[in-house]
Amino acid sequence: MDEVRVMRRVLASNDALAAAQLDVLDRHGVLGINIMSGPGAGKTSIVERTVEKLKDKYGIYVIEGDIQGDLDAVRVAAKGAKVFQINTQGACHLDGMMMQSVFPEVDFDGIDLLIIENVGNLVCPAEFRLPVHFNVTVLSTPEGSDKPAKYPLMFTRSDVVIVNKTDLLPHVDFDIPAIERSVAKLKPGIPVLKLSAKTGEGVDAWIAWVEEKLASHHTGSEGRA
Amino acid sequence: MDEVRVMRRVLASNDALAAAQLDVLDRHGVLGINIMSGPGAGKTSIVERTVEKLKDKYGIYVIEGDIQGDLDAVRVAAKGAKVFQINTQGACHLDGMMMQSVFPEVDFDGIDLLIIENVGNLVCPAEFRLPVHFNVTVLSTPEGSDKPAKYPLMFTRSDVVIVNKTDLLPHVDFDIPAIERSVAKLKPGIPVLKLSAKTGEGVDAWIAWVEEKLASHHTGSEGRA
Repeated sequence: MDEVRVMRRVLASNDALAAAQLDVLDRHGVLGINIMSGPGAGKTSIVERTVEKLKDKYGIYVIEGDIQGDLDAVRVAAKGAKVFQINTQGACHLDGMMMQSVFPEVDFDGIDLLIIENVGNLVCPAEFRLPVHFNVTVLSTPEGSDKPAKYPLMFTRSDVVIVNKTDLLPHVDFDIPAIERSVAKLKPGIPVLKLSAKTGEGVDAWIAWVEEKLASHHTGSEGRA
Repeated sequence: MDEVRVMRRVLASNDALAAAQLDVLDRHGVLGINIMSGPGAGKTSIVERTVEKLKDKYGIYVIEGDIQGDLDAVRVAAKGAKVFQINTQGACHLDGMMMQSVFPEVDFDGIDLLIIENVGNLVCPAEFRLPVHFNVTVLSTPEGSDKPAKYPLMFTRSDVVIVNKTDLLPHVDFDIPAIERSVAKLKPGIPVLKLSAKTGEGVDAWIAWVEEKLASHHTGSEGRA
């Protein structure tokens, strides 16, 4: 009971921090997107593709969350984005408290898009609100079609689902219609985008989704995650 | 600071529970193994193979940990093992407290091997001790060779690493020597077993590892995880 109360206080305090940070983004006209998945589903490859495709049209800032190291930050910076690496030192998610130490360091002038790549984990990141307008969950085909049923919160909290590694479909047991049904059951109406960050197949639909959100954000018609 | 203190108390209390539960296993001559991985790395398929190969020689009991549902328990029970499904209701790991509600329900007479399949998560399960003698981490080839560097605790806490989905090696970028080097750096001397639970390739070396531990456990020469 004590533990539950502590956790509720932590979550409420985190929500307040994230809301204040989102105000900072809104004042600068920045669209925030949080990308989540289990380890190795391809979040960083998707961020790399996104930076490649959009960096000449928009200012992009990326915050990389990892338990330790800067492997992903180095990859994304090589594509031409500004990157801030957070090391959580063991923590299984990013949260508003961690962003509190990052946001004052970032110059959001000239930035249109903030991409936050969360720690690779299909459970904990869904519980901690971040300063973003949209949450994205990535599931890769080798992980299997049963994941929405087994990790429902992550999908319930998402505004779009990406099925990555479609290039492996001939070699794995993965049922696209089953995934579409189970995602629709958890969160009716959200898009399920199929793509391969490796080959580039299907990436354009994802880029179109991001650009549509960037456009509506600038005209002020979009809500908050 | 308060939070850190709460977490330390939780972990110490968990260690004590797990140690007492391990005594129960030892009194019954049961070998306990905890299998951990990120989502979709193939833990359940490996448990299925293990049950298939060993059920005629040993009594096997499986505890399945999932946030919700019993998909994995149904699969494993179909192979002929006794199975207890734990639903963590959101928690990202199994721990001694959860085992406390399971152990009194289990008749360990005639059981030689307890397999605990943890929640799919490459972070949190490593922090909570369970009543087992050995920890196993499964990494699948599509997840990429950078995972030990990014999720070090899981590998540091393991007694053996399984690289699963070797059947996908021709289709993914995965560097076996790099994995062997990075695992050896984190935990010198532990075996890295390469197999495909899908095709059966390499499974015999894993079964031999389990049988060797079962044999030494019965003669009392093995330690504790």
